[in-house]
Amino acid sequence: MSCHPDRERPLDGDIDPQETVPSRKNTVFVDGVILNGPTTDAKAGEKFVEEACRLIMEEVVLKATDINEKVCEWRPPEQLKQLLDLELRDTGEPHHRLLELCQDVIRYSVKTNHPRFFNQLYAGLDYYSLVARFMTEALNPSVYTYEVSPVFLLVEEAVLKKMIEFIGWKEGDGIFNPGGSVSNMYAMNLARYKYCPDIKEKGLSGLPRLILFTSAECHYSMKKAASFLGIGTENVCFVETDGRGKMIPEELERQVWQAKKEGAAPFLVCATSGTTVLGAFDPLDEIADVCERHGLWLHVDASWGGSALMSRKHRKLLHGIHRADSVAWNPHKMLMAGIQCCAFLVKDKSDLLKKCYSAKASYLFQQDKFYDVSYDTGDKSIQCSRRPDAFKFWMTWKALGTLGLEEKVNRALALSRYLVEEIKKREGFKLLMEPEYANVCFWYIPPSLREMEEGPEFWAKLHLIIATDVST
Amino acid sequence: MSCHPDRERPLDGDIDPQETVPSRKNTVFVDGVILNGPTTDAKAGEKFVEEACRLIMEEVVLKATDINEKVCEWRPPEQLKQLLDLELRDTGEPHHRLLELCQDVIRYSVKTNHPRFFNQLYAGLDYYSLVARFMTEALNPSVYTYEVSPVFLLVEEAVLKKMIEFIGWKEGDGIFNPGGSVSNMYAMNLARYKYCPDIKEKGLSGLPRLILFTSAECHYSMKKAASFLGIGTENVCFVETDGRGKMIPEELERQVWQAKKEGAAPFLVCATSGTTVLGAFDPLDEIADVCERHGLWLHVDASWGGSALMSRKHRKLLHGIHRADSVAWNPHKMLMAGIQCCAFLVKDKSDLLKKCYSAKASYLFQQDKFYDVSYDTGDKSIQCSRRPDAFKFWMTWKALGTLGLEEKVNRALALSRYLVEEIKKREGFKLLMEPEYANVCFWYIPPSLREMEEGPEFWAKLHLIIATDVST
Repeated sequence: MSCHPDRERPLDGDIDPQETVPSRKNTVFVDGVILNGPTTDAKAGEKFVEEACRLIMEEVVLKATDINEKVCEWRPPEQLKQLLDLELRDTGEPHHRLLELCQDVIRYSVKTNHPRFFNQLYAGLDYYSLVARFMTEALNPSVYTYEVSPVFLLVEEAVLKKMIEFIGWKEGDGIFNPGGSVSNMYAMNLARYKYCPDIKEKGLSGLPRLILFTSAECHYSMKKAASFLGIGTENVCFVETDGRGKMIPEELERQVWQAKKEGAAPFLVCATSGTTVLGAFDPLDEIADVCERHGLWLHVDASWGGSALMSRKHRKLLHGIHRADSVAWNPHKMLMAGIQCCAFLVKDKSDLLKKCYSAKASYLFQQDKFYDVSYDTGDKSIQCSRRPDAFKFWMTWKALGTLGLEEKVNRALALSRYLVEEIKKREGFKLLMEPEYANVCFWYIPPSLREMEEGPEFWAKLHLIIATDVST
Repeated sequence: MSCHPDRERPLDGDIDPQETVPSRKNTVFVDGVILNGPTTDAKAGEKFVEEACRLIMEEVVLKATDINEKVCEWRPPEQLKQLLDLELRDTGEPHHRLLELCQDVIRYSVKTNHPRFFNQLYAGLDYYSLVARFMTEALNPSVYTYEVSPVFLLVEEAVLKKMIEFIGWKEGDGIFNPGGSVSNMYAMNLARYKYCPDIKEKGLSGLPRLILFTSAECHYSMKKAASFLGIGTENVCFVETDGRGKMIPEELERQVWQAKKEGAAPFLVCATSGTTVLGAFDPLDEIADVCERHGLWLHVDASWGGSALMSRKHRKLLHGIHRADSVAWNPHKMLMAGIQCCAFLVKDKSDLLKKCYSAKASYLFQQDKFYDVSYDTGDKSIQCSRRPDAFKFWMTWKALGTLGLEEKVNRALALSRYLVEEIKKREGFKLLMEPEYANVCFWYIPPSLREMEEGPEFWAKLHLIIATDVST
């Protein structure tokens, strides 16, 4: 049964819902608890939310995006612990004290929306996805069944459909999940289920050694996924890349043959569209050829680079992506949807995703509901409760349109281009390579090293000074 | 490099940051994109956020908790698709139209904070965690490294420490993650790593058949986890439960012996504190004895029942939990922290969690940073970017104190007790069993069946009419 301490429904129907203090004679007293009447002062709670919203608006939405403000009030861990009152106590704090705490949390947090904040993932503040996020926090839905999340499930369907269109598939399936790393896990598990559906019930014990291929420049989640899924990191075969960080298809094929010769069972190739450090795009078309020849699942980790699909000018970076079996794509990066907003997309429409992931929990996914239960997509997920992450991207897309999203991508890449030209002009900076995406890799050469020859001693010294990768 | 379209930093320093339209003569034009000057009207964006916040306050925070309003404006999928403008187009929509869309989304969404909304997980609206959620959405942090999330990482540490104290461990470790299902996966993987650390690199192929034990009433995520982790659902041994849905320790031990006899390798027992349907608590002390005798990892899935630890009156339900090796506990359920707020807790303090999960990505977890890098907890996680879920629980705890949280739990269980007494009094209702937690299971017997004997025909007919489990 449910407990709703606020605005509590009167018990036994003998208390006026407008009344805030129950009359004593009708008090329902069970196990030492008075059950009727509100336990929380809703008016005070609402006022607190209103005041906090004002604070958030001023201190985060306005001030934290202001170029004249600091990105961060930096304090090392031990000092910050002294400054913040982190301790959880027996009794609660009054509202004015909580608002001071909120202020402190904001003060010492990094302003990730600030124009001078440079770190992985971030691309600034988007007002539309922010509103969507406020809405979903207030509504607090869980997208497992249509009856609990009707709107957000339809929104997810609409967004997935559109993303599938941009990949270039005629149809497909997918699910939003908490991270590109998790998307890559979804792919790895789905590929091995396709390879051998028995694995779901029987597990890997006693099977030949499953082996997968990815580039040496891939995201570290490939190793995490392989170990989590029981495949083992030694069974991730890291294929050599060229000077630009792109997987060499001939090397891939050579390694597939080698693995087969050793009695291992190749089942998956994970190509990367937009590597973490160099921003490299693997040659998907050639890799797809290798996969076709060997009957391997092709997953493309486009968590970072997928956004280029929105730009008619830059989508050629992912040429051949329509041939992938699955794709990971995170609109929370260049498309600014807020952490996290990550889609795992699958070309298959024969319900492979559902077959692989379903556990058919009868308390949640009853089959005799009064609506089309194919909308109860929760059983495709490794999660039970799940956040409506598609909604924030939907809102931004609605606000900016496809053309507005395209402009964001074009602008990000033009800014990189601008930075590259500035680096070339400036003394003491050395470009690592011409970028093809928004990652610009360069060295800062301090004055003491500028006249030195680029031998082992030069590199050893340079590594001790600074090694910077500045990505969007 | 980073793109910050809003409040853009002037390029080449020749444009006044206060100016909204760059003077044409200084325009920086790269690849068809004008780079200087803002691309978005920040003033209009801020106004939009303000208006949307007002709408959210009125329509969700106030109206959706009002007993006189509807829980849901129900529409079946096809009809709702007609009512909502879901399509994503080339051009964006103006602000007034976006606000109408927000209104529609709210109208047709289920009001999970409504006092008459009864479904799994939910316990009403908590103003404090709501404010924390608004704050983190605005700040948009990712808790992987201290330099990006200093405050939220310290908050997570403080909350984990306190939860560990309530479990009764002297010390421990842990990580917040997106769901009880995922916590159970963490446990399963950690237990097998402890059993055989080589699995991380070598995988399961060629190993003896790993086998784990859980009760027949456990959460369905056990099966999901076993299949995802490559263990296989057939290697989940479902131990018989007693009439109240509690695992029978003698049966557990019998099955462990049986598995060993068959050459399988038992490595884990997953007990449940608060089963999904009946709200049953497995006898942890007796189960811990079995685990000790056989050297098995004991994980307790207290996703639902963990909250009882906050109540001096009810924490006896989890008697023996301090003997567990790991615990899953979701404050987003009875403690109302908002979806998702899920802790995976580990008794080990020898860095087992980190050893098991780390991939040591050098672009993110550099070891030569200028602060204590043990605060870069991201490498303990299966995710890369991660949300600061501990913060919303911290805020509620700060606001209510331990005593306030205890009151929430006591009140929920007193309400269940009240419902039980009402069911007993009311004709046509039949209690399934006396509850020990907040799950109250009962049958509704329609008038046509009230005189019928409880034979096979009675049950067949009753199943066709209604089978309801109403949990908090």
